[in-house]
Amino acid sequence: MELIHIYKAIQDDLAKVKGNLNSVSRIDFDWLSEQLNYVVRSSGKGIRPALTLLAGKFYHYNRQHLLPMAAAVELMHTATLVHDDAIDKSVTRRGKPTIFQIWGGETAILLGDYLFAKAGESVADTQSPRVIKLFSQTLATISSGELSQLCTAFKLKQTRQQYFQKIAGKTASLFSLATESGAILSKAPEKSVRALKEYGHNLGIAFQIVDDILDFTSTEEKLGKPIGSDLAQGTLTLPAMLLLERYPEDNPISRLFQNQDRDRQKNIAQTIELIRSSSIDQECYEVAAEYCAKANHSLTELPEDASHRALVNLTNYILSRET
Amino acid sequence: MELIHIYKAIQDDLAKVKGNLNSVSRIDFDWLSEQLNYVVRSSGKGIRPALTLLAGKFYHYNRQHLLPMAAAVELMHTATLVHDDAIDKSVTRRGKPTIFQIWGGETAILLGDYLFAKAGESVADTQSPRVIKLFSQTLATISSGELSQLCTAFKLKQTRQQYFQKIAGKTASLFSLATESGAILSKAPEKSVRALKEYGHNLGIAFQIVDDILDFTSTEEKLGKPIGSDLAQGTLTLPAMLLLERYPEDNPISRLFQNQDRDRQKNIAQTIELIRSSSIDQECYEVAAEYCAKANHSLTELPEDASHRALVNLTNYILSRET
Repeated sequence: MELIHIYKAIQDDLAKVKGNLNSVSRIDFDWLSEQLNYVVRSSGKGIRPALTLLAGKFYHYNRQHLLPMAAAVELMHTATLVHDDAIDKSVTRRGKPTIFQIWGGETAILLGDYLFAKAGESVADTQSPRVIKLFSQTLATISSGELSQLCTAFKLKQTRQQYFQKIAGKTASLFSLATESGAILSKAPEKSVRALKEYGHNLGIAFQIVDDILDFTSTEEKLGKPIGSDLAQGTLTLPAMLLLERYPEDNPISRLFQNQDRDRQKNIAQTIELIRSSSIDQECYEVAAEYCAKANHSLTELPEDASHRALVNLTNYILSRET
Repeated sequence: MELIHIYKAIQDDLAKVKGNLNSVSRIDFDWLSEQLNYVVRSSGKGIRPALTLLAGKFYHYNRQHLLPMAAAVELMHTATLVHDDAIDKSVTRRGKPTIFQIWGGETAILLGDYLFAKAGESVADTQSPRVIKLFSQTLATISSGELSQLCTAFKLKQTRQQYFQKIAGKTASLFSLATESGAILSKAPEKSVRALKEYGHNLGIAFQIVDDILDFTSTEEKLGKPIGSDLAQGTLTLPAMLLLERYPEDNPISRLFQNQDRDRQKNIAQTIELIRSSSIDQECYEVAAEYCAKANHSLTELPEDASHRALVNLTNYILSRET
């Protein structure tokens, strides 16, 4: 099922959120306005704001608070991407040159900060100190997760537990903020708040596992950035971990991590080839599917309505997505 | 008058704020904990948190909300410094190597983000959506001010108005957040909120002008970083603007900005020498003093108590400070 169908129950409000995001660039400072316009318009699939709106649909759908919250999660997401690209020195994202590539790392830092600020302004409009606190805690979790990834870069000895901790921090935390805040702002009972938080967390883990698979199995055209990027950054993802386990004696990941300069491209290409010709991607998809099943399981707490179906469909979409 | 005397009315609470700031580093992630400990303990004079506490003293001094607000302004300040050092590639601050220098630009970006997040958590504890919104707006203003500085770097044709706009954004906005939030959280009447906001703004402008003077007239030992840093970054500050006006035909700033690589150190040294041997620093101090007078003038709205005297003394301190 395509996203446009999954989003049906909230499509009008999601369009409003996108309109509000675009209006962030309407400021009286041409240079910054141009960058904001560039980065906000090249935004992605809108999964995070859609999650907030869908999670807000079960009880008292409070448009006045849910719309700024949905904008806030997307702005925070965009800000983290701008900073990530500066950290990784990435030159393309979503098929376009990154802010880092066009305007440099200095601008990327400040533009990211500006986007965090706009996200903060938007979340303040929810008037909910609880949600505002959650929002800030999530930013702390994300940056701490990214720092954890940075300090384990090019390290071969990493446990699955570490991997799941890192992706929980850098990705799942924002997914669970999106759903939990939607639940809180619609005055859901605490049991449902927990259920939607849990759904968001598990969906986020699955989303990141699929991201990590696609980084090996997709194409540059589909991904909008070079494949094998994680490995090039020294990030050991689940597919890479499985490959290391399968060939403990001699494999291109060990060679790459032990000597980043020698035969770099060759080692990356070999890793991609080995993963593609193995059943590793399938094994990883099975792990992602388990998290999607967990996500769906937590929804049993909630009314069986159109949003419920949309959230279930979203787990299927996550598993089948190609980009 | 020394800061310790100016802070007398709030010294116990300021000590508590510092204790709370130190506790930010007590986390179960050694790598990040070490960096947080390093950056929080090498913090400065505490002017911003002191401003929040002093501004909160005039009406209903609400310790429960003022303490987290004071911590939030200091955390935001620290976060911006960590990012600034990454942007400027500065190697020393306050006499110690910067985060950028020790752990690199990637860590500096994420550590700054983490500090913004902790600031956001702290401001959420004020439970005041108005103050939370102001906080985020201030971060937008600061990053926009810094971006404005970045996009005018090494440009010779800049007006005083542009200079004052930039320092209002990058410095005075946080000073006025500190005082305005203190006023709001102590339930000051709106007239007093405006007066304290105004005080903070004008004090912040004066503070930055003095900063810009000291960058030419102080010593590396006192400043804790190399003198002439602004010029090296291509930032045209008030003393430099006055020098350009005084010697429009031929001067080392024009030479430096037109060709950054040729005789770089010589041009910076000549500029420092020319400013020191002129009355330019005095003229700049006069401008700063005007802003301090404006700051004091806005205090006439407020009760004449110990906090009032402390804020007046602070304007004198700002003008006479050597570091």
